[in-house]
Amino acid sequence: MTRRTGMSQEELRRSNCSALLTYVHHRGPTTRARLTTDLGLNRSTIGDLTSQLASWGLVDESAPASTTRVAGRASGRPSLLVTPSQQVCVLAVTLDVDRIQCALVGLGGGILERKVRIHQPGGHDVAEVVETVALMCEEILAANPGSLCQGLGVSIPGSVRSSDGMVRFAPNLGWVDAPFTDKMQARLQLPVRSGNDANLGVYAEHLRGVAVGSSDVAYVMGTVGIGGGFLVQGQMLGGAQGYAGEVGHLLVDSAGGDCRCGSVGCWETKIGSDHVLAAAGRLPGGGMVALEEVIAAAEAGEPRAAQAITEAAHWTGYGLRSVVRLFNPDMVVLGGVLRRLHEVRARELEEALHEGSGIDLADSIKLRGAALGLDAPLLGAAELAFESLLRNPAPAESAGVSDALRA
Amino acid sequence: MTRRTGMSQEELRRSNCSALLTYVHHRGPTTRARLTTDLGLNRSTIGDLTSQLASWGLVDESAPASTTRVAGRASGRPSLLVTPSQQVCVLAVTLDVDRIQCALVGLGGGILERKVRIHQPGGHDVAEVVETVALMCEEILAANPGSLCQGLGVSIPGSVRSSDGMVRFAPNLGWVDAPFTDKMQARLQLPVRSGNDANLGVYAEHLRGVAVGSSDVAYVMGTVGIGGGFLVQGQMLGGAQGYAGEVGHLLVDSAGGDCRCGSVGCWETKIGSDHVLAAAGRLPGGGMVALEEVIAAAEAGEPRAAQAITEAAHWTGYGLRSVVRLFNPDMVVLGGVLRRLHEVRARELEEALHEGSGIDLADSIKLRGAALGLDAPLLGAAELAFESLLRNPAPAESAGVSDALRA
Repeated sequence: MTRRTGMSQEELRRSNCSALLTYVHHRGPTTRARLTTDLGLNRSTIGDLTSQLASWGLVDESAPASTTRVAGRASGRPSLLVTPSQQVCVLAVTLDVDRIQCALVGLGGGILERKVRIHQPGGHDVAEVVETVALMCEEILAANPGSLCQGLGVSIPGSVRSSDGMVRFAPNLGWVDAPFTDKMQARLQLPVRSGNDANLGVYAEHLRGVAVGSSDVAYVMGTVGIGGGFLVQGQMLGGAQGYAGEVGHLLVDSAGGDCRCGSVGCWETKIGSDHVLAAAGRLPGGGMVALEEVIAAAEAGEPRAAQAITEAAHWTGYGLRSVVRLFNPDMVVLGGVLRRLHEVRARELEEALHEGSGIDLADSIKLRGAALGLDAPLLGAAELAFESLLRNPAPAESAGVSDALRA
Repeated sequence: MTRRTGMSQEELRRSNCSALLTYVHHRGPTTRARLTTDLGLNRSTIGDLTSQLASWGLVDESAPASTTRVAGRASGRPSLLVTPSQQVCVLAVTLDVDRIQCALVGLGGGILERKVRIHQPGGHDVAEVVETVALMCEEILAANPGSLCQGLGVSIPGSVRSSDGMVRFAPNLGWVDAPFTDKMQARLQLPVRSGNDANLGVYAEHLRGVAVGSSDVAYVMGTVGIGGGFLVQGQMLGGAQGYAGEVGHLLVDSAGGDCRCGSVGCWETKIGSDHVLAAAGRLPGGGMVALEEVIAAAEAGEPRAAQAITEAAHWTGYGLRSVVRLFNPDMVVLGGVLRRLHEVRARELEEALHEGSGIDLADSIKLRGAALGLDAPLLGAAELAFESLLRNPAPAESAGVSDALRA
């Protein structure tokens, strides 16, 4: 039930170039023969598209290693291997409460180089962050003089307006309506796009992590707060403005405690790391390290720690039940605190998830730990930066493809 | 961030035929000139595609009424008007707890004829329903001998597996794993597809109702139960198996009452019509008529009725807050009980919705009453039945388009 628009011959060619480049970017080096099958195009079209992309420097062609030759094949000439060019790359950045990470990511998704800078305490002034990121990017680009950088993608722990990258609300950075993306672009003179960390994370897990092959995925990442990202039919769920996926503020307990968002009984007040630490009688602020100590104490028989872990596992399941009933995902990917809770309290968590089985149709749902960890938002940010190239691989000055078409 | 596949010349032509037919089906009669602009194709391509569709009997071309001629246009020949053929039609059925509705719907979405049959008490035997629907369909087709029926779409008040139309769970019909769709197809010898009523409803409101122009829509319909349907970037949200949108069983009050689903504190236990009636001291089962009496009593100053209505409005807002935080829709469409609660308690409902404004970014969200009422699921069911034709308008025997491509 798609709204379709028309497509001209020129757009058809652009669309097929896009499909081929996207395929090798997502799946890695691929033979022409395999591309012919998987893209559903004939051999001469694949050859033509590949030559075009190679002429633009986006793919390389080479004879495959002899072991990959099809046994019994009559022809002596094996199908050429199409490889995404490693010179074509993007910059990807994650902004977190305590550190900035910056990486160079090649076409194909490999991390070619990365730098990490620890924040000064309270050092979240927008202009300072822009300058720090710019210097990190410039160092990386200077160290990789042959790279053809397509732009910068940034992962933000907050709500980012999709139309212009305005950071509407990032409580951990203390940002409200911060024009970070615009300032970053003005400073770097490169295309810059920003997105929510969990939204980018689920996309990366889908492309290169635990959720390859799953098209409807709920990704829930627990730290002090709870972030959610959703994949719907292989697409990131952004919503009308880009703010979708705020699972941390699902109402789960109307008689529950106050949340920093101003509501009462949000899911985050039940399973955020500080809440679990407090329930176990620990001081807040210790993050995953402190949580591991509570888990170890629970395993060693400390009743209060055990009770805190069990309750958090229950609440994780209760909240996931709402998520599953709304989205019917084929996979739920758990990160951070939630991943650990599932590892140590799988039965309790899954009982809560499946309570009310009369309408629980998703009994075959796969619960998995995140595979990419903190690299998921980084790789997702790289995808943001690659998106424009993948949608239209033709260089701007290329005959037959106007700038207007690149919009 | 779409996964793209390749497209051959033949597929391009099919895709453009599909785009044009879908356009006039959704928007109604359109001039060739307008199609050229809106589909982004040149005039000769539009002329060619229109002639092709006309040769298949799917559209008619005519000179527009003289008033539509462009003033000052040099040429004496106005752009031809392309109209979806009224002979091409589908059957659409809604199965509700107390009645079956069957309609003939033409290309373009007009309801050409409809029949309603009231159920016998307890008359929800699958085989009997299949037979009743088949007889209604046959009567309608017999009365419209010139119609070219493309198939049957059915709206089900329950969870329908998208892969094969198996009705997994429809509590109001008493169906669990009912192979209704297969049996219906075997009996009618026409393609039959079934879907969830609220999922179909939101799509119809998007195409022809209050949500035209909104691509991210949350549709929440309250009766005894609470049904939800979501539109994500113009697409119906089905989830991995077709069960997405079960908003009635969102956990909102962990200390709340038992739900018929086996869980505790579901949204449905707070705002379903029987709950509101009970809170007002009335007997359950009276539906919208009884609810209107409670609303009238509340307006007249009966404290218990007023309290019940106010509380239900609050809980409607609390549940919607979770929905909005997950989906970031640009419009929320309310039907049935929820529409009335919003009409009489807008302030209370919206206060609850916007509580915790620190992260409430969706303050511009539009809350609207459903426009199509009970016709929304019916028109959505018609869209299901039209989908195959719209995706590939070429007749099966048409040269150049193989049956395999129609899959």
